[in-house]
Amino acid sequence: MLSIAAIIVGNEVLSAKVVDVNGPHAARRARELGIDLRRIVVVRDTVEEIADEVARCSASHDWVFTSGGVGPTHDDLTLLGIAQALGRPLVEDPALAALIRQKLGAGANAEALRMAAVPEGSVLWVVEGLSFPQVVCGNVLPLPGVPSLFRRRFDALALRFAGVPVQSARVVTRQSEPAIAAGLRQLQARYPGVEIGSYPQFDEQPWTVSVTLDARDGAALAACRAELLQLLDPAELVSG
Amino acid sequence: MLSIAAIIVGNEVLSAKVVDVNGPHAARRARELGIDLRRIVVVRDTVEEIADEVARCSASHDWVFTSGGVGPTHDDLTLLGIAQALGRPLVEDPALAALIRQKLGAGANAEALRMAAVPEGSVLWVVEGLSFPQVVCGNVLPLPGVPSLFRRRFDALALRFAGVPVQSARVVTRQSEPAIAAGLRQLQARYPGVEIGSYPQFDEQPWTVSVTLDARDGAALAACRAELLQLLDPAELVSG
Repeated sequence: MLSIAAIIVGNEVLSAKVVDVNGPHAARRARELGIDLRRIVVVRDTVEEIADEVARCSASHDWVFTSGGVGPTHDDLTLLGIAQALGRPLVEDPALAALIRQKLGAGANAEALRMAAVPEGSVLWVVEGLSFPQVVCGNVLPLPGVPSLFRRRFDALALRFAGVPVQSARVVTRQSEPAIAAGLRQLQARYPGVEIGSYPQFDEQPWTVSVTLDARDGAALAACRAELLQLLDPAELVSG
Repeated sequence: MLSIAAIIVGNEVLSAKVVDVNGPHAARRARELGIDLRRIVVVRDTVEEIADEVARCSASHDWVFTSGGVGPTHDDLTLLGIAQALGRPLVEDPALAALIRQKLGAGANAEALRMAAVPEGSVLWVVEGLSFPQVVCGNVLPLPGVPSLFRRRFDALALRFAGVPVQSARVVTRQSEPAIAAGLRQLQARYPGVEIGSYPQFDEQPWTVSVTLDARDGAALAACRAELLQLLDPAELVSG
């Protein structure tokens, strides 16, 4: 299974002008496709912070998606950050410049052609479903931040990275976390391939705890769920 | 102005079981209070990843808030991660253990008392509006992930870090980003104290670009806005 990280280049998110929807979209699609999204980071629009985070994510994930900062204005710094992270200069990609000229016609001024500057050694992927090719810098895939454009491009690219989707189960109990913690700890030790999560809710009476199980192996999931139901008090079970 | 980072310890966010609302809440309140939220990171529930991110954020921000992973179950690893980041062992805080015993009564079993284990050298802050004190480990403030609890605690703590709030303006034009990029770049150079953002929207016709201005100095904001309106084409202005 491939691991990915999502870097949201987002002054507008950090300053609460908008709520990020690209990270949650990536999480949903990654889950559906069996891709291991390990990290979502919202960073400021500065070359240093983008570069720092890209370098870190690039080294520890199979693929890194960035969102935003790929337009022609002064606050579009993502490609510069990626170039710095990879230790490569920005150079004009002639094929990309030609595509921008073709798309924008008379509007393809010097500012527009800044969008053709990519880290040296980048390649252009032709991807089914996308009319414009994808710039790929090492293992980094810069995507636009506009949500509709991000979604279309992320979905088309993520299909290439699909693996075995995770299966899930959820059991809800009125028992408290301290009351079930020892049992859950032992259960987790017996089922290392099942990820067991415990999430209390205190907003509505009665307080409950949701125990979630996630696994790629359906048989292990079923066996773990059966044992979980054994260790919980049937009288306090809400659903399961 | 104080800088902060928010670390969301969140397998459940990365696996798309829930959409994080604590990061966006922190962003909104930080903006209202004049606190500089510089980074929101969603990491997996592993000691290594929590420790790695806490160490990094702690070194480069005044205060670091974490969300989640502070309960008594096996997947509650935030305090362990903070301890590792700070290079300190986990030790039982006697005052915290006494509070847990008092709160839970007969339910204060060994599992519940795990919640009294904090990085050595941590202190407990008494905070107005919070019935339970806040654990403070160096400059790291571990908060619960349950949204209602996170919000109440974040809001009470953030009041202590309040500064001068940012003022904002927004101008919307039908001109394209390439058409206005050179002007914006020069404007940004003349007003280093104003953060100028440019955000295209392609979802509805006509396509527009929102130019946002953010500054703590109201006079600089007004002057920058006046110059911005000068450089845009009045015939293409949507609002401003």
